[in-house]
Formats: sequence, structure tokens, C-alpha cells
Amino acid sequence: MAKILVIYYSRSGNTRKMAEAVAKGAKDGGGEVTLKDVKECEPKELLEYDGIIAGSPTYYGIVAGEMKNFFDRSVKHHGKLEGKVGGAFASAMALGGGNETTVMSILQMMLVHGMIIQGKTKKNHYGAVSINAPDEEAWEECRQVGIRVATLSGKLFE
Amino acid sequence: MAKILVIYYSRSGNTRKMAEAVAKGAKDGGGEVTLKDVKECEPKELLEYDGIIAGSPTYYGIVAGEMKNFFDRSVKHHGKLEGKVGGAFASAMALGGGNETTVMSILQMMLVHGMIIQGKTKKNHYGAVSINAPDEEAWEECRQVGIRVATLSGKLFE
Amino acid sequence: MAKILVIYYSRSGNTRKMAEAVAKGAKDGGGEVTLKDVKECEPKELLEYDGIIAGSPTYYGIVAGEMKNFFDRSVKHHGKLEGKVGGAFASAMALGGGNETTVMSILQMMLVHGMIIQGKTKKNHYGAVSINAPDEEAWEECRQVGIRVATLSGKLFE
Amino acid sequence: MAKILVIYYSRSGNTRKMAEAVAKGAKDGGGEVTLKDVKECEPKELLEYDGIIAGSPTYYGIVAGEMKNFFDRSVKHHGKLEGKVGGAFASAMALGGGNETTVMSILQMMLVHGMIIQGKTKKNHYGAVSINAPDEEAWEECRQVGIRVATLSGKLFE
Repeated sequence: MAKILVIYYSRSGNTRKMAEAVAKGAKDGGGEVTLKDVKECEPKELLEYDGIIAGSPTYYGIVAGEMKNFFDRSVKHHGKLEGKVGGAFASAMALGGGNETTVMSILQMMLVHGMIIQGKTKKNHYGAVSINAPDEEAWEECRQVGIRVATLSGKLFE
Repeated sequence: MAKILVIYYSRSGNTRKMAEAVAKGAKDGGGEVTLKDVKECEPKELLEYDGIIAGSPTYYGIVAGEMKNFFDRSVKHHGKLEGKVGGAFASAMALGGGNETTVMSILQMMLVHGMIIQGKTKKNHYGAVSINAPDEEAWEECRQVGIRVATLSGKLFE
Repeated sequence: MAKILVIYYSRSGNTRKMAEAVAKGAKDGGGEVTLKDVKECEPKELLEYDGIIAGSPTYYGIVAGEMKNFFDRSVKHHGKLEGKVGGAFASAMALGGGNETTVMSILQMMLVHGMIIQGKTKKNHYGAVSINAPDEEAWEECRQVGIRVATLSGKLFE
Repeated sequence: MAKILVIYYSRSGNTRKMAEAVAKGAKDGGGEVTLKDVKECEPKELLEYDGIIAGSPTYYGIVAGEMKNFFDRSVKHHGKLEGKVGGAFASAMALGGGNETTVMSILQMMLVHGMIIQGKTKKNHYGAVSINAPDEEAWEECRQVGIRVATLSGKLFE
């Protein structure tokens, strides 16, 4: 089974709820899943996984500082995440409130790590987004990110 | 009065409806407003305005080819739009469906023209977005883009 | 062998030179490669390939209208490119002249198609870039994009 | 005179050198300039300035965590930076190494603050960039960002 890490930063709990839906999807997609608050995760743990999915609230249009610091610290292991599968999700307070640019900022961090990203043909193309707490549609979009990353990780690593 | 051009491409009519709300806002903000379908506009007309607000549906995550071609053709006048005020709006089919990245692609075209862009502290930070036809909230966000561009153009050009 | 399409738009010839280096890399990476000017390519041809690498000059900070129109027309086949591997390259006239935002605009189009993208840990993280005609380093970065897409396509499709 | 803050994070010293060139330009553009390391700056100080120019090295394709944390903490004053003029600069280790996406990430933070940004018609369109330490051209591009922000701040606030 592909090993998948779902890592998130959440203050209000909205991004955590999204992370749970992503983790559910990663299981549904055949992965062995670990769900972690970024505050309880060390960058070296990233090395243990085939797929990594990161989520953040939208702070000033991009990833929250707490998650950014985590990726900045991962520079110690630069090169070793190459070829792993990545995915992203983000919550915001409004439509047009920075959801997509936050997801893109996370994907850019992953591309610099040499990771592999897959888009989606319908609805949430880059990664899952939610306005405040995930409603039924956002929950399903989160689950789909999990399925997608686990499925691709399975193809590449099993 | 500051002269404002609201220019749009629309196939389904959703972006046109947004354009009308933007034009209403530009008037409310004190501007003298022209509303034009990009198909009926020549790039040289851009030179006549103090503020230019462009809208497009989301096609593959960025501005539609029809609007892109228009900006590409504006290269004949490169340098002459410097210091004009810009704004953007975009429709998409879903939350997370590329609205924000489309707005950002329009803003990038305007920055390359040396234009001046202002963000917004609440809701639609980069430019107005709508899922399909604008609902009441999206209509108001469009109007706010018009107000913002007309107000700033007034400060700089009147 | 994985089938790779290298598609480009070029007016000055700089992006075409990059395309040739990308095609060389795709061969070096084990692919069966077709190199095409976008003007001589129909969107339906995209369906025949496992990996698609698109290149464009930087026009107003994003992909040229000619390449954008091609992707817009590919909407007829939306959903059928899902899971194919993508890559991008772009030429510009200056450092800071829009190279990276052009590459990102191409990658966004590919993600909306549900395609799979891999970043690079060193130098050109998102895709290959060149200031004017590719020098030795840019040529090698282009070749690396070809190798990367062909290698990943091989893993997924052979 | 317009009051301009040039704020930077720098570990190697390259971004600090860029900041000095930006500060020189802001003076040349008629501004009263303060140059500060982000580590010695409190978010509330932002309120005292008409124009704010922020610089960062490229860490994983976007703004460094240290600068991101600073902007995240500025949320206490959200709304009060509206209408101020912004600008950005970034260093990276390679062409295509994330310079432009880092500048764009800073501009996005500023747009969410309701700030005003101006692009540039030639060379560094979004903000000044440098590969490692600024060479003569990058130094001049930095100076131009300072001139541009000070000039626009002068128009709007003097």
C-alpha cells in the first residue's frame, strides 16, 4: 500500500475538517494514511511517505506562515522528496478570497521539491477548496484529492 | 471625470452581466464609462482611457484566448498604457474552478503594461469573481471593482 | 515506448530552438517523440500521446494567444487528457520578464485537463526558461524537461 | 515627502544588497526612506508609511517564512494599509528558480491588504529580481522599484 501523509495547519478547525475528508479519500484510494497537525510533524518525517498532501488556511492570499516555515525547514532534505506525489487543499473566508492562490502556493513549494502533482478535470482543478467549514461539496472535493494522490502514489510506488 | 473602459469577453452572457455591474460601479465611483465587448474593440482604443477593467470567463484556468489575443495585439502600443489604472473580473463554473487564477492572469497582463492595480481588503481580494451568473454578492463585488478603479483613476488623472 | 508530443509556438525562433532541445531530451528519456508547431497541430492529436510538453514565448506575462487558443479549442476533448503527463517551457526577453509566470500559466492549463506535472529540485523548478535564444544552460534545462516527462510517462504508460 | 519603508529578510546578504538599491531608488524618487530588516520591524510600523516595499529570498518558490510570518501578524491592522503603495523584490539562485513566483506571492499579500501595485513595461515587470547578489542590471532594476513606489506614493499622498 502507498503511504500517504495528510498534513495541515488549522486554527479555527475548518482546515482540520478538510484534512479529515482528504484522509478518508486517501484510504478510499487504497493508501495507508497518516493524518498530522503540522505542529506535531518534523520535516524528516516527509521522507517516509510516497504521497504528501498539505492543507492550510488562506492567510494573505498564500499558505500560512506555520506551514511555510515547515517547508522552509524541509530544505535539509532537499532532493529526497523528488518523485513523491503531492496534493493541496485550502480554506478561505470567501469566494475569491484567496483559496486558489493558496493552493497554488503549496503546489509551487512541492514542485520545487521535485514532486508530482495531478490536476482535476472538474470543479476544484488545482486542489480542494472550502469557504469556511467544508460543506458537502467541499468535503467531497477534499476526499477526491485524497483518492487522486493515493491512486497515483499506488501506480508509482507499489 | 476619469474615463473608464470596461471590456469583456462573454459567450454564455455571465461575464457580460458581470461587466454591467462593473460599469455601474465605475459610474457610481464618478467615472465616465464605456462598456465594450472585446470583439468590438481595437487595442488603440485603450489609449483613450484612464482606467481599464477587463473581464473574461475562465478557460483552462486563465484568461480566454479571445481576450488574450486582444492584449497580445496591444503590443503595438506598448509603453503607452503605463500608469493607467487596471482591474479584472472573471466567471467560472465552480468554486475552485479557476476564477482567481484567471483574474491573476489578467492582472499580470496589466502589470506588464506598467498599469496600476489595487487589491481589496475583504472578500474578492484580486478582482471580482462569480460562479456562473453573478448572484447578489458577486454583482456587488463587480460593482466594487468599478468603484475602486474609478476612484483611483479620479485621484491620479482628474 | 512512451509517446511524447513537443508542441510550441514561436515567432522569432527562440522557442522553436528550445522545443528542439526538449525533443532531444524526450528521446534521451526513452520516448518516441513528435515535434510540432502549434499552427500545424489539431487539438484531437493530443489524444494520441502519453506526454505533452508545450512551449510559448512570454506575451504579457502569460502564454501566447496562439497557444491559448489551441488549448481553448481542446475543450472538445475535455476529460480525455486526464492522467497524461505534462511539461512546459517559455522564452522571454529578460530575467524577471515573465518567464516563470508563462510556464505556470501553461501548467495551470494542463492541471485543468487533469494532467500530471513534475517539478525539478534544481534551477528551473517549474519548467525550462530562456532569455532570448537558449544558451548552453537553458538548452540543457530544456533537455531535462524532455527527459523528465518521457521518464515519468514511461513509468505510467509503458 | 512620501514616507517609504523598505523591508527585507536576508540570510546570505543578497536580498539586503537589493534592499539598499531599492532604498536608493526610493530616495531618488523623492521619498523619505526607512530601510529595515524584518526581524527588527513590528507590523504596526507599517501604518506609518505611504509606500511599503518588501523583499525576500526565494524559499520553495514563494516568500520566506520569516517575511510571511510578519505579514500574517499584520492581520491585527487589517484594513489600515488600504490604499498604500506596494512593491516587491526577490533573490533566487537561478534563472527559473522561483524569482517571479516569489515576487508575485509578495504582491498577492499586498493586494489582500488593499494596497496599490504598479507594474513595469520593461525587463522586471512585477518587481525586481536577482540571481544571487545583484549585478549592475539587477541593482538598477531594484533602484527602479524604489523610484516607482516613491513616485506613485508622492502622487497619492503628498
